[in-house]
Amino acid sequence: MRDGPEFRRIRALIEAVGAPEVPEVALGPGDDAAVLRVSGPESLVVSSDLSVEGIHFRREWLTWDAIGFRAVAAALSDLAAMAARPIGVLVSLATPPELDARTLAELAGGIGICLREHEAALLGGDLSRSPGPVVLDVTVIGAAARPVARSGAVPGDEVWVTGRLGGAAAAAAAWSGGLEPHPAARRAFERPSPRLLEAHVLRESAEVHAMIDLSDGLAADAEQIAAASGVGLVIESGAVPVHEVLENWARPDAALAIAVGGGEDYELLAALAPGTALEAASRLSREFELDLTRVGTVVEGAGVAWFSGTGELMDPPASGFDHFSPEA
Amino acid sequence: MRDGPEFRRIRALIEAVGAPEVPEVALGPGDDAAVLRVSGPESLVVSSDLSVEGIHFRREWLTWDAIGFRAVAAALSDLAAMAARPIGVLVSLATPPELDARTLAELAGGIGICLREHEAALLGGDLSRSPGPVVLDVTVIGAAARPVARSGAVPGDEVWVTGRLGGAAAAAAAWSGGLEPHPAARRAFERPSPRLLEAHVLRESAEVHAMIDLSDGLAADAEQIAAASGVGLVIESGAVPVHEVLENWARPDAALAIAVGGGEDYELLAALAPGTALEAASRLSREFELDLTRVGTVVEGAGVAWFSGTGELMDPPASGFDHFSPEA
Repeated sequence: MRDGPEFRRIRALIEAVGAPEVPEVALGPGDDAAVLRVSGPESLVVSSDLSVEGIHFRREWLTWDAIGFRAVAAALSDLAAMAARPIGVLVSLATPPELDARTLAELAGGIGICLREHEAALLGGDLSRSPGPVVLDVTVIGAAARPVARSGAVPGDEVWVTGRLGGAAAAAAAWSGGLEPHPAARRAFERPSPRLLEAHVLRESAEVHAMIDLSDGLAADAEQIAAASGVGLVIESGAVPVHEVLENWARPDAALAIAVGGGEDYELLAALAPGTALEAASRLSREFELDLTRVGTVVEGAGVAWFSGTGELMDPPASGFDHFSPEA
Repeated sequence: MRDGPEFRRIRALIEAVGAPEVPEVALGPGDDAAVLRVSGPESLVVSSDLSVEGIHFRREWLTWDAIGFRAVAAALSDLAAMAARPIGVLVSLATPPELDARTLAELAGGIGICLREHEAALLGGDLSRSPGPVVLDVTVIGAAARPVARSGAVPGDEVWVTGRLGGAAAAAAAWSGGLEPHPAARRAFERPSPRLLEAHVLRESAEVHAMIDLSDGLAADAEQIAAASGVGLVIESGAVPVHEVLENWARPDAALAIAVGGGEDYELLAALAPGTALEAASRLSREFELDLTRVGTVVEGAGVAWFSGTGELMDPPASGFDHFSPEA
């Protein structure tokens, strides 16, 4: 904010975002810092998430408003993983010179759509020119009475997952192969839904011991829960709920690899105390039309063991997945 | 964190940072999000600050630990501007492929030096490859019982500034001209001191109506206070405390332009109720060997008017400064 035009450019972007007002925000963006008033017994929950052009997205694949939307959705998903409610976000944006004011306003518009969907305020951020690709860094700030970490899974817990997996990765695989993705896959990639309200329902209805959002794919994220909790996970590959666009693939093994190896689904993977999932499943189905599916069990040990439909130990289906990934 | 090696790389970087423990942090980095417990009457204060290679720094000018230190110092300075104490930071880092593990550890080491100096925790962040330049985004979270905004200046207030200005800009000007900077200027650029404790003393000892940190230079930042407060500022150019390396320049007008046009001093500019500055000045001198200098007055109106040593209205001395700047 060296000078007047820069200040006006930032003001215009804040207006293009059009973020909702949130009661905790005593002072919004525009000063040296934002001021929040959070009282009561809740803890604060904070996380940051980078979106780098050429790594997390390509401008040939997405409109600019989808790029903005996804960056915020991915960051908010970390709050969902903690069963936290969002308060607001800070968005830092480094942009190459060829991005004109109209493009930036479109990006800001996509950020705003996601913020309004999830009632999160814009708390601040930074804006800089860059000689390189577009880089978005979104920091989310939320609150939770009882945040859920990855580390609380114990042997005997049941492993459940929300939604259906692999839609976003199927879109990335199609684009990478020079194809136009199925519209439902494209939508999964462009407009991921951080499961914020759903996590709250899960927390209320079941006994959640550990939870993670599927940003890197079920195979990798299950490993994270196992490592953080000091337990093993046993996953039945036949139980994994696969996205509709992958259901009739000629090679079910490739479909499964995409479903569990592909990231950016932003569904939730949770370790629940045995027998506590059914009410949550019923409420998620009724209130959000969202599946809750059991995919495995927590055991003593370490790492993740995969079993095939016929009950045999198998290699993790995601091995060799990386070449489909938008990060490849 | 797709896989094991990535996870270990992040763990190694967190260890290389070696951030201090802070009592508010209930859960540190490594989960989906960090958890803070902030009780009592304080408000939270949050801000983000980007450091982009080629815009804010050049790797030819600085060691990697200085690059890390400066990025955190610049971000913490926004907390100083609000008279907030730091709790912790989130650091997101996008790096090109040629940066090896040793370089990243050096960068992390510099981040850690700054965090330990100011007792701020590492709360999280993100790490991504990038096809472009190094981008650091540092989000700071602090707390303040009575945060100070830019917007509270009223006519009659006195305008005061901490420290001596232009050291960092003198270094950047030297580098840009192919010269080696004076060691004191280099140090001002490499190791800026966010005035966190000093802001607290100022807040305690004087009646602070508005405050900003000098990240963009006194000329531009005075405009920000004027605009946010809906007042005018009158600055006496002869009163501006100039950094020692600029004191004996053959062209005092160029030295003044660097002192008030150059950014990254991270000193504080404050509007104080008349007659309330003297105890603060005495304490800052005694406790921190830091000057507090009156440079002007708040008046009715808008914008910033500059007066020369002979009492005549003059052009803002920073005009035409940009070509010295590291951002040029």
